[in-house]
Amino acid sequence: MISTKQRILLISNSTLHGSGYLDHAENEIRDFLGGARRLLFVPLALYDRAAYAAQASKRLGAMGFDLASVQEDDPRRAVEHTDAIFVGGGNTFRLLKGLYDFGLLEPIRERVAAGMPYVGSSAGSIVACPSLKTTKDMPVVEPPSFAALSLVDFQISPHYLDPDPRSTHMGETQEERINQFLEENDVPVIGLREGTMVRVEKGATVLKGITAARIFRRSRAPVEIAAGSRLDDALFADAQP
Amino acid sequence: MISTKQRILLISNSTLHGSGYLDHAENEIRDFLGGARRLLFVPLALYDRAAYAAQASKRLGAMGFDLASVQEDDPRRAVEHTDAIFVGGGNTFRLLKGLYDFGLLEPIRERVAAGMPYVGSSAGSIVACPSLKTTKDMPVVEPPSFAALSLVDFQISPHYLDPDPRSTHMGETQEERINQFLEENDVPVIGLREGTMVRVEKGATVLKGITAARIFRRSRAPVEIAAGSRLDDALFADAQP
Repeated sequence: MISTKQRILLISNSTLHGSGYLDHAENEIRDFLGGARRLLFVPLALYDRAAYAAQASKRLGAMGFDLASVQEDDPRRAVEHTDAIFVGGGNTFRLLKGLYDFGLLEPIRERVAAGMPYVGSSAGSIVACPSLKTTKDMPVVEPPSFAALSLVDFQISPHYLDPDPRSTHMGETQEERINQFLEENDVPVIGLREGTMVRVEKGATVLKGITAARIFRRSRAPVEIAAGSRLDDALFADAQP
Repeated sequence: MISTKQRILLISNSTLHGSGYLDHAENEIRDFLGGARRLLFVPLALYDRAAYAAQASKRLGAMGFDLASVQEDDPRRAVEHTDAIFVGGGNTFRLLKGLYDFGLLEPIRERVAAGMPYVGSSAGSIVACPSLKTTKDMPVVEPPSFAALSLVDFQISPHYLDPDPRSTHMGETQEERINQFLEENDVPVIGLREGTMVRVEKGATVLKGITAARIFRRSRAPVEIAAGSRLDDALFADAQP
């Protein structure tokens, strides 16, 4: 179970069509991070970590945060000496492998359990979940395990796209992929559309942003939950212990 | 390197919009399998293996093959006692995990090296490659390794979709995902559009079907190769040894 100390903001996507990097999430990030000054950015999901860290530093620096990024030298210490952490999106397999390679999973878990705010975007949202099994990314590198941070008890499926009735493409839709996940895993999934976020605070899980989310559970019909609503019941009511 | 004995047919997709299961590939499958009578079907990529085997048995039985399918009891023996093998599509992670669980990788490799025809479709095409790292499927189960059959020296990216210039979705395109693969792995990739196939025979790799394929290599611009053409030069010319 999520401890009531945990504070987690999971964003579907860093960039929304027609706006700049993190623009659509800025107000929510500001409100969520409140008085935090030092923010540690994790750029492990992209190949060019230095360029990614520079981009994030510029954007989050403009919001008034004092930004550091995970570097080769003593990344664990960086986790200990920050007010909050921001895990950027990109390739989820690469990100999770990086977290293992740098030995960051346990330090992040400990600090989040003690109340340090965690912000994730896209792949950074998925690795907050029990595993990376709901990613749509290509498995371009092989992490030692699919097990992720387990900060929350549900899975995020970010960039959630509704089926396109005009499509003639025979590949699976995102809903079909999530149903494959549920065939193999009994863990609730939030289909998180672009422009939306999940905020976990005081033991409550709330949907933020511009549109509804689609909640998937094994052996149940998916349900739509409106932005601004609590997701807890849709995710966990009547769950097997 | 591929031995000149190897005979491999890798299909992008089992079902093409507007036609039935395997219809678009039937002539090529018949021509490729020639005099083979006994065909072993591998239904490990779908959750309901029995239903999948029944569907394939009906379809390939109607083409005149004597169909068996990989079962729990002695699947290795089934690989030894068939004229050809057909590995069906579905979820690539589930398929590769199944091949490991049933101990089928080495028996299939040995028989294909000795000349047994291999037909794969979608996920069944990817597992013929060095790894599953070019799948678009969701990693709903965790195989013990990403290493696959390595029957060929290239990767297939099936159901290849060209970028949609009208899209407002900020998720990666298939080309962007393949470029992420090439950042991490120096292995050529065939973007195999629906309705197309790759046929490997007598040491030559030929594109079959209704349209061109897009070939991706590290540090080179992608190239389009027309249906009916050999792919070998586009895949391997000037490769580092």
